[in-house]
Amino acid sequence: MTFPEVERWGVHDVVLEGPAAGNPFADVVLTARFQHLNRVVEVAGFYDGDGTYRIRFSPDREGHWRFVTSSNVPALDSRRGEFVCVAPGPGNHGPVRVVDRYHFSYADGTRYLPVGTTCYHWTHQMDEEHEESTLRSLARSPFTKVRMCVLPTGGMRPPALAFECDTPGKLDKTRFNPRFFAHLERRIADLCALGIVADVILLHPYDKGVWGVDDMTPEQDRYYLRYVVARLAAFRNVWWSMANEYDFNTNKTVADWDALLRYLQRLDPYARLRSIHNGTRMYEWAAVYDFTKPWLTHQSIQHWDATQVGQWREACAKPVVIDEICYEGDIERRWGNISGREMTRRFWLGTVAGGYVGHGECFVDSAYGRWVSRGGVLSGESPARIAFLRRILEEGPADWSRARQVGTYWLEYLGDRQPAFHSVELPDGGDYAIDVIDTWEMTVTPYGGRHRGHCRVPVGRTDLALRVKKVTG
Amino acid sequence: MTFPEVERWGVHDVVLEGPAAGNPFADVVLTARFQHLNRVVEVAGFYDGDGTYRIRFSPDREGHWRFVTSSNVPALDSRRGEFVCVAPGPGNHGPVRVVDRYHFSYADGTRYLPVGTTCYHWTHQMDEEHEESTLRSLARSPFTKVRMCVLPTGGMRPPALAFECDTPGKLDKTRFNPRFFAHLERRIADLCALGIVADVILLHPYDKGVWGVDDMTPEQDRYYLRYVVARLAAFRNVWWSMANEYDFNTNKTVADWDALLRYLQRLDPYARLRSIHNGTRMYEWAAVYDFTKPWLTHQSIQHWDATQVGQWREACAKPVVIDEICYEGDIERRWGNISGREMTRRFWLGTVAGGYVGHGECFVDSAYGRWVSRGGVLSGESPARIAFLRRILEEGPADWSRARQVGTYWLEYLGDRQPAFHSVELPDGGDYAIDVIDTWEMTVTPYGGRHRGHCRVPVGRTDLALRVKKVTG
Repeated sequence: MTFPEVERWGVHDVVLEGPAAGNPFADVVLTARFQHLNRVVEVAGFYDGDGTYRIRFSPDREGHWRFVTSSNVPALDSRRGEFVCVAPGPGNHGPVRVVDRYHFSYADGTRYLPVGTTCYHWTHQMDEEHEESTLRSLARSPFTKVRMCVLPTGGMRPPALAFECDTPGKLDKTRFNPRFFAHLERRIADLCALGIVADVILLHPYDKGVWGVDDMTPEQDRYYLRYVVARLAAFRNVWWSMANEYDFNTNKTVADWDALLRYLQRLDPYARLRSIHNGTRMYEWAAVYDFTKPWLTHQSIQHWDATQVGQWREACAKPVVIDEICYEGDIERRWGNISGREMTRRFWLGTVAGGYVGHGECFVDSAYGRWVSRGGVLSGESPARIAFLRRILEEGPADWSRARQVGTYWLEYLGDRQPAFHSVELPDGGDYAIDVIDTWEMTVTPYGGRHRGHCRVPVGRTDLALRVKKVTG
Repeated sequence: MTFPEVERWGVHDVVLEGPAAGNPFADVVLTARFQHLNRVVEVAGFYDGDGTYRIRFSPDREGHWRFVTSSNVPALDSRRGEFVCVAPGPGNHGPVRVVDRYHFSYADGTRYLPVGTTCYHWTHQMDEEHEESTLRSLARSPFTKVRMCVLPTGGMRPPALAFECDTPGKLDKTRFNPRFFAHLERRIADLCALGIVADVILLHPYDKGVWGVDDMTPEQDRYYLRYVVARLAAFRNVWWSMANEYDFNTNKTVADWDALLRYLQRLDPYARLRSIHNGTRMYEWAAVYDFTKPWLTHQSIQHWDATQVGQWREACAKPVVIDEICYEGDIERRWGNISGREMTRRFWLGTVAGGYVGHGECFVDSAYGRWVSRGGVLSGESPARIAFLRRILEEGPADWSRARQVGTYWLEYLGDRQPAFHSVELPDGGDYAIDVIDTWEMTVTPYGGRHRGHCRVPVGRTDLALRVKKVTG
């Protein structure tokens, strides 16, 4: 007997035929229990239109798996099947997990560096050529994470939406649009193939009363979450962002967000990374969502000031990801007109402080729309420098914040400072090599040979960093 | 009968001969009552060495003045004299006063713009050539105020000090050194001739246990203040800074500073401007000296963040003078290595927010010593830009913060932002002219002719400001 083969952390769809009458999204309950040895994972299925039902599963162990469905519809109930989970293919390192409190790793132990960018609605116009162009841009870019929305803004009139749209301009929130989701899933899979995380934004406050998707009832929100999780959670590159700028949504309280996040946590069989993103300035730590709440895996911060990373790390022992730090660009809005140099400085500041900084770009004369909204082509000056920073990080030890503690490797960033000399204190007991890194010109220049003790390194201009490595014990 | 002539706000010394034996600084009490019509000003005299006593007075009204002394020494008691106060000479606008809550003006109504710099000990080495060089630098510079210390640091070995130094390295705090003060006074008069305020720093915490001048007893402090005020207060360009980085002095409490400031207020017959300068970061307003205390005339702030000017103005209705905002330079210490561009940005940020920013410079390879310590020659890139900013301010209305309120004149500063267009909202009821100011390249480019309503000005690069002026009513 031959079983289907699925690679570890890949996606396996069990496809079943069932009723198309009525409202199958609401009427049909379908789940499956997948089992490998003594490991059992229960997964919800979903209606995919035209009488087709799918149960989407991502196995995390190699070997033989079997499953059995259960449903309130006889045709879908007690259906059984088997498949074999084989070794992951090239480039498949599994999903990302938090490690060492403040960092990330793929399931196979490979280090994951979140180098984020934002293209909120790059998939919504369903413009193949444009989306391929975005994917080409991403493939050439340093970015390993893209923030992207499931729901439209009030200003958009896309060809398909997450919900059915029978009456023009009016959504039927009891029925989903499988065509929309199939398209979205294909793009998430494309990102996966590029090694890029899809940081999926589930809700946002930009509806302006048009589609009615930012003031749904708790029941509607849960209905929506169940469907999205059933369809998307199996993709190993998915992270959940419960909301963008949650605090700009006046229809929900923090208690509502708590309830939704906890519900999401229960729904998701894979425990994908999970956070929520603030909109207001965080003058006070207390003013933002409390990232120490156990259902959040990391801090998804909006703030312009990367120098605060240390204090956010102290306040909460979870990775600090500044998903929005202002965008490189030239629009009028204050959040969208910093220079490439300033963006580069913020990346270095946040990184050296032990956080992860995200990029965005919005130029007035973008041909198709702004990168942060639509994707397309990158034209700023920062992506090349961010790529250079990523290269520097990848050349360093996986856990360089620990390396710093033990005095074997560290980066010092001088930013807008221009000291003639910068003193480096080298711990006793070894020789050190020091490189002078020009973060803007993207050069690495070794300083002398080996050093000990108090070392004064000539600097004399701005935008430099030092890389210090122990070379003998 | 011919009387001596003194110009209004000038300095008139009444010179008397008296005892030289014992310790005249401590033993002799000498004061004088100066009278013009019904105006009486009581002034303390001082011993100037070699049996000479002086009573130094600056008349503030034109006309006939007479005086009578009183003393515990018969030779100095009940001495009488007269003089005539004549109109001020060219360039003599009188002392500076606070006007319009947040601004300054000379006594004759001429606007005073404090454009500060710092040369803490430029007079202490008594090196004529170097001091003349400093004065030439200041004359060519945009600066209208210099922060300078009376007392030495622990690291200095100057040829003369404020106190006598009988035993090498050990001060006699009961006796002052008239030669030191005569030299200091000459330099204060030189600054006065250049139209520059001497922001005289009375105490500082840099003694390091060497001279013992930062841990004097309250009685010693008062003895010192009496002598300094008797000698220096008559110079119309003197401001008092009770202490530099007062909070780094662990020998004194805030209550001690209060007492000293109130004592100074009582001593000074001219009510020269009076403040105290903090050293620590002002994370919280509460963490610094409370500038609302009535014996302070202005806020003398150390802080790196000029964007906080608005909140300091709200917290305290007195002028905001950021006397230290980091120095342009290339030394290792964090406070001394910002670039000229960054210094320029901080000047503009603070100015447009309604504050006054001070300059300082410290480059490693300064020939004689660093500008902030010794004066000498300016080599940074910011002074030319600060001069340009000063020119822009001088071209504006005297009270441009009020002009802003009534919509007739304002500056908008874009700093590190680079919007393609910047929107200016012009109030109804008039035409406006707009200039685009390049704060770094020091150019002013008119944008179009006249404008009304919502006006989008092309920008597209960093370091620009806009000047908006109403041209018709």
